[in-house]
Amino acid sequence: VDNPGRNKRKNINDPVYGFITIPDELTFDLIEHQYFQRLRRIKQLGLTNYVYPSATHTRFQHALGSMHLMKQSLQVLRSKGTEITKEEESGVLFAILLHDIGHGPFSHTMEQSLIPDLTHEDLSLLFMEELNRQFSGALSTAIRIFRNEYPKRFLHQLVSSQLDMDRIDYLSRDSFFTGVAEGVINTDRIINMLAVAGDELVVEAKGIYSIEKFIMARRLMYWQVYLHKTVLAADRMLISILRRAKFLSDAGEKLFATPWLASFLTGERVTEGSLCDPFCLHDFSRLDDDDIFSSVKTWMNHKDPVLSVVCMNLVDRHLFRAEMQNEPFDEDYLAAIRRETENRLGLDAAETGYFVIVDKVTNNAYSPKSDRIRILLKNNRLLDLSEASEQLNISVLSGPVSKHVLFYPKIINTR
Amino acid sequence: VDNPGRNKRKNINDPVYGFITIPDELTFDLIEHQYFQRLRRIKQLGLTNYVYPSATHTRFQHALGSMHLMKQSLQVLRSKGTEITKEEESGVLFAILLHDIGHGPFSHTMEQSLIPDLTHEDLSLLFMEELNRQFSGALSTAIRIFRNEYPKRFLHQLVSSQLDMDRIDYLSRDSFFTGVAEGVINTDRIINMLAVAGDELVVEAKGIYSIEKFIMARRLMYWQVYLHKTVLAADRMLISILRRAKFLSDAGEKLFATPWLASFLTGERVTEGSLCDPFCLHDFSRLDDDDIFSSVKTWMNHKDPVLSVVCMNLVDRHLFRAEMQNEPFDEDYLAAIRRETENRLGLDAAETGYFVIVDKVTNNAYSPKSDRIRILLKNNRLLDLSEASEQLNISVLSGPVSKHVLFYPKIINTR
Amino acid sequence: VDNPGRNKRKNINDPVYGFITIPDELTFDLIEHQYFQRLRRIKQLGLTNYVYPSATHTRFQHALGSMHLMKQSLQVLRSKGTEITKEEESGVLFAILLHDIGHGPFSHTMEQSLIPDLTHEDLSLLFMEELNRQFSGALSTAIRIFRNEYPKRFLHQLVSSQLDMDRIDYLSRDSFFTGVAEGVINTDRIINMLAVAGDELVVEAKGIYSIEKFIMARRLMYWQVYLHKTVLAADRMLISILRRAKFLSDAGEKLFATPWLASFLTGERVTEGSLCDPFCLHDFSRLDDDDIFSSVKTWMNHKDPVLSVVCMNLVDRHLFRAEMQNEPFDEDYLAAIRRETENRLGLDAAETGYFVIVDKVTNNAYSPKSDRIRILLKNNRLLDLSEASEQLNISVLSGPVSKHVLFYPKIINTR
Amino acid sequence: VDNPGRNKRKNINDPVYGFITIPDELTFDLIEHQYFQRLRRIKQLGLTNYVYPSATHTRFQHALGSMHLMKQSLQVLRSKGTEITKEEESGVLFAILLHDIGHGPFSHTMEQSLIPDLTHEDLSLLFMEELNRQFSGALSTAIRIFRNEYPKRFLHQLVSSQLDMDRIDYLSRDSFFTGVAEGVINTDRIINMLAVAGDELVVEAKGIYSIEKFIMARRLMYWQVYLHKTVLAADRMLISILRRAKFLSDAGEKLFATPWLASFLTGERVTEGSLCDPFCLHDFSRLDDDDIFSSVKTWMNHKDPVLSVVCMNLVDRHLFRAEMQNEPFDEDYLAAIRRETENRLGLDAAETGYFVIVDKVTNNAYSPKSDRIRILLKNNRLLDLSEASEQLNISVLSGPVSKHVLFYPKIINTR
Repeated sequence: VDNPGRNKRKNINDPVYGFITIPDELTFDLIEHQYFQRLRRIKQLGLTNYVYPSATHTRFQHALGSMHLMKQSLQVLRSKGTEITKEEESGVLFAILLHDIGHGPFSHTMEQSLIPDLTHEDLSLLFMEELNRQFSGALSTAIRIFRNEYPKRFLHQLVSSQLDMDRIDYLSRDSFFTGVAEGVINTDRIINMLAVAGDELVVEAKGIYSIEKFIMARRLMYWQVYLHKTVLAADRMLISILRRAKFLSDAGEKLFATPWLASFLTGERVTEGSLCDPFCLHDFSRLDDDDIFSSVKTWMNHKDPVLSVVCMNLVDRHLFRAEMQNEPFDEDYLAAIRRETENRLGLDAAETGYFVIVDKVTNNAYSPKSDRIRILLKNNRLLDLSEASEQLNISVLSGPVSKHVLFYPKIINTR
Repeated sequence: VDNPGRNKRKNINDPVYGFITIPDELTFDLIEHQYFQRLRRIKQLGLTNYVYPSATHTRFQHALGSMHLMKQSLQVLRSKGTEITKEEESGVLFAILLHDIGHGPFSHTMEQSLIPDLTHEDLSLLFMEELNRQFSGALSTAIRIFRNEYPKRFLHQLVSSQLDMDRIDYLSRDSFFTGVAEGVINTDRIINMLAVAGDELVVEAKGIYSIEKFIMARRLMYWQVYLHKTVLAADRMLISILRRAKFLSDAGEKLFATPWLASFLTGERVTEGSLCDPFCLHDFSRLDDDDIFSSVKTWMNHKDPVLSVVCMNLVDRHLFRAEMQNEPFDEDYLAAIRRETENRLGLDAAETGYFVIVDKVTNNAYSPKSDRIRILLKNNRLLDLSEASEQLNISVLSGPVSKHVLFYPKIINTR
Repeated sequence: VDNPGRNKRKNINDPVYGFITIPDELTFDLIEHQYFQRLRRIKQLGLTNYVYPSATHTRFQHALGSMHLMKQSLQVLRSKGTEITKEEESGVLFAILLHDIGHGPFSHTMEQSLIPDLTHEDLSLLFMEELNRQFSGALSTAIRIFRNEYPKRFLHQLVSSQLDMDRIDYLSRDSFFTGVAEGVINTDRIINMLAVAGDELVVEAKGIYSIEKFIMARRLMYWQVYLHKTVLAADRMLISILRRAKFLSDAGEKLFATPWLASFLTGERVTEGSLCDPFCLHDFSRLDDDDIFSSVKTWMNHKDPVLSVVCMNLVDRHLFRAEMQNEPFDEDYLAAIRRETENRLGLDAAETGYFVIVDKVTNNAYSPKSDRIRILLKNNRLLDLSEASEQLNISVLSGPVSKHVLFYPKIINTR
Repeated sequence: VDNPGRNKRKNINDPVYGFITIPDELTFDLIEHQYFQRLRRIKQLGLTNYVYPSATHTRFQHALGSMHLMKQSLQVLRSKGTEITKEEESGVLFAILLHDIGHGPFSHTMEQSLIPDLTHEDLSLLFMEELNRQFSGALSTAIRIFRNEYPKRFLHQLVSSQLDMDRIDYLSRDSFFTGVAEGVINTDRIINMLAVAGDELVVEAKGIYSIEKFIMARRLMYWQVYLHKTVLAADRMLISILRRAKFLSDAGEKLFATPWLASFLTGERVTEGSLCDPFCLHDFSRLDDDDIFSSVKTWMNHKDPVLSVVCMNLVDRHLFRAEMQNEPFDEDYLAAIRRETENRLGLDAAETGYFVIVDKVTNNAYSPKSDRIRILLKNNRLLDLSEASEQLNISVLSGPVSKHVLFYPKIINTR
């Protein structure tokens, strides 16, 4: 935000959409808030830059981009006769702006190691409620929309559904920064095809190909980017590191850590007293990618060989091998890998668990179960996307696809 | 680099050029080396993302991108009859790949605070020489080219001159990631217009408009991005922070720091003994953006008010005001600002020096003095760009433009 | 082709790929030939610009673009160890360059009216053979490849198959110029994944998502662009016009026509004698979009009301209404439309046939029957795309989809 | 315009801006009018596609694109507090939509041959007045704005000035379709920097670099595209052809021509009577690129050697050689060229005038004389761009640059 206070129209350059305009003063103040500024230091795709080096974009830009698309959508819906009050407009813009504010650094990784009890949605809500206190209730409507407690259901659907501004922005943005052209979608066209029927968000029939393409692009981005096995390997290494650090710390071992990371590793709070009860939101609000990675780098010299080896390998990008297949892995094969790892690295069984990991990943391109995408036909009938589409009425695309993944050090060679 | 060892053709996705192909095994091994991998954690434009939030791209991609352009240039030159041996090709590709390997985190900032004696070019050379030892002399030609000791002078010019692959890549890349369309240049056309006359790199006459545009784009990027006053303000704050930290540390104050930062702050080396004599390259090779920023964040809680206040302001993006003008600042005005700052913040004169800073920045769009750009006319005569161009024969564009900049806290209000 | 003869490297600006380089003198001479230059005046997508106004790109650019992709493919295949001789390289480049040279103006339309006996592939071959005579046999290998009579089958597949350079270029190009982002494909990635197994063109397994995306994009482009019902309506009107003109001409009616169109309308050849036996290639080589459209415009004033009305409606873009549905149209409904048309326009049954037309269009996204796309697994097994893909093993996508279309004047209103 | 009448929001795909929305019914009706539809058949850049093959975009898209930018500008100005009534909005949108409606095919060429007395601006006004009659006065405000008779001067400046929507669109669009990246400008940023001071259109100071870039881009596009000497050669050949046809026709020679072209060649009107007095607007409204080019093609077989030779050369792209230089051509040199041409082609002096042509072209990047671009400083002072800019205060850029051009057949070789 260049030159705050100077010019009334505040614009932010965005390589994906050109310019993003901040609509009003309150939005500007929310963006300036330290809770929101923290998102500048949290990469949208965590360690994905190990495979796609340009994917260093942050949650800050994603939040602004989603808000930008929301504004366009509201304009389209109004032009088609849907009434949206000024207060609802602010509410839904704030809701989308803050929808990801609870993300921590490498957040899915953190959820599997240091902060197991709260999802990032829970945390986003904690932040919104705290901001609502600080901004004297200005976020009340936003919170009702976010929690799906607002009567006009389509407002919540714009924030969170299978066709929300979040997904539309992240697909475009992640595709742009990874350079994976397969993820390109026609943002303009999708948004122009949105409409409201009853209180539900729907898509006009002539937009069906764009929606199919959107579902396809999402599926392709899952397998090419989000669930790319080398990315998963890096993630798993970071989980092993944080679990080992927690284990050592719980065992009384002294570990270097930035204060904000220490707060969640050892429970020694930076912020004191009742402010941190039950969850220390303020300490969390200072935690970002730098804390994690500078600590990981420092642990390369730690005397615990499990910790130091995995840290060194992650920092220098000697990543675990990842095997991915449709069927579960054969138990004998797994046993052989574990044995070989124990022998080669001189580890016991418990330690081997940090090096040999079996996991399962799932991608659900479109789920006709939950909040489905509805198509508005010319005769005003509504059909579920999976019925309306010649292509997506197919079990394969709409059913979840799961794959089994096995990770182990590259020096192990059993096949 | 996805799946090393699997496929012979290794491609890296790049949003700017599509795909970057790694030409051979040795290049691959250099890229995999921890010295080079470190560049993944050093942002190309330091704190510029405070103004252009998407500018989080790293020196890693820039180095690969420059190599990609170099390959294209060699192909063009060969197609025009210039002989380039296989060894020269490798040499110049290695030289451009490693030309920035000596950059530390926020490197111009570091040079003004913690590492004052060595430029990043010096450090790049130290790294290249160390890598040459590790790779048994494979970089000898690259080093000769880099040092401009190789007979075919155009090879050095492709690496370092006013029209080198470094500049062409960074202009394109920085323009792409900031979203500043004014910086877009026609990379393909510029490269297609390159030729060699004698042993010098020249440009064919019909490429002159593209070169003018390149010079213009560079100038515009300077004022809109590289020397944007809000970016400069953030930079100056980081310099103040590192200087204050150094001052406190020299005075015996205990300061949190990651080990690699501590090595340069207090001289306590991580790597021991003669390996660090005279410069501790190995410690330096572990230092990146994370070390700096996680330490800055921690210092927000330090008891020294100068250090903690500037750190808090930088982290939460409450940046100094920056005034920029063509003439030097009036001494009375500066005195008033300093006095007001002392009073408002309760500082002494020395401490005020961390908050009120006067600086001068200079941009030289094209310098006909040093290694000039030569235009090859159809009659085989050579002209300097500033003579050949109808527009750039003008003092204004080719002379350096300097501006005076004054920084001080936003709460100070003297006008 | 700017400045022929001046510079050895000839480049043509192309907004899709940047620069297209003409590889050698012979290719240059082929491009300069009047047969090839004619393609500048034949729009790639005929009347599609009535719906997508920027789709005015021509077959000239498509031919150059396909050649450009072919060069890249050859480079990729060679880098993977496939041997391709210099002669084979020229052959396959000429074959792709000339693959569409037989297209007439609005060619599918012409095939349904004035030139019913020869497909554009037949005509392309006639042109190639004539050029081969003029260029003393230099196209012999190209012709063998084009006719699939060359032993290395993959060369023909690069020119004509379900994954040929023709398709890859036209999808990218048509998507670019229509502005239909759904058609964007990752050209670079697809080409980088090509390989040869035996003598067949195959795709490496890790390219499967890009291929799926390519098949999907092709399908979407069919329904959104190529078979867009408004585009089909304009096409049908042009067919009605040309059929009516032919009918009138056969009945001895005097009709304005450019000489080249007259040659095919009345059989009065411009080129004389045996040169035109059996097909008057030279007259055809002068026929382009301008001949058709300037004649259509002139016929707006013809005294035959069928001809003049359809011409006026086409020129002023008052297009027929098009209805599209999965099932055949109800006979009663058709009879009612025809009756109403006869009454409203005062026509007899035969004349009504120019205004009310029933048609059927078919799109086959991927056909596993004919020349299938083969995927090369890591264990060197080959699978058909429809088996290898989790998504495309589905009857819906790979079976042909047909739709029934009905066209009639907009003033008719029966529903 | 897909599916008129169906959906209230009408969108047109545009590769440059994504989607262009037609704001209301009346605009829709204007676009549907045959006068406007004619623009689909008039290429924006005439014969430029002989050098940049993709530059086949039409005036139709340019008109829509300019309207799209106008809408964005009005939104920006209103957000800054400038009052613009609903009627003024319609007026200025109609004015920009129709600003080029008077362009004939290859219009600058026509003005130098067949229609010497009226400029395209005169013709645009004739069309607007006729449309105003047909639309019962709905265009009255538009016409006042177009003629600069409306009090709020900035409205006219948005339509016609050195920074109007016309120029901004054509630079972006021509750059996009030629593939000349040098012409890329930051449309979004320029428009966001517009403001109104008094009743004048101005630019905020922080937009100055974008404006400089815009002036530069315009200058570069002039020399690389609009005044490219090969393009000029093709233009001159077409002028020679039309002049010769007119000469032959005046001499009583019978010439093939489409009726609409004949109307201007021989004065035989298609539309009869007083409707064509004094200028036959209706005949002109039917004339487009096809008429010219189909006649030129036909004249390849005409018995007049001057006409047929130039036509053949133009159609088959054997273009005249063009020499361009800063000084006037030497008279002896010209005489030698003319003599050689007479001898080689067997022509007399008058006929040689169709083959050897001397011309002068001028480009004025920015003229501080006429309607200058004004910069709004932070202190609310206004400066002319040439004073405010560090770079453009230079005579070279702002003075007109003229070059002398000589055209003659390539077979002539005197140097």
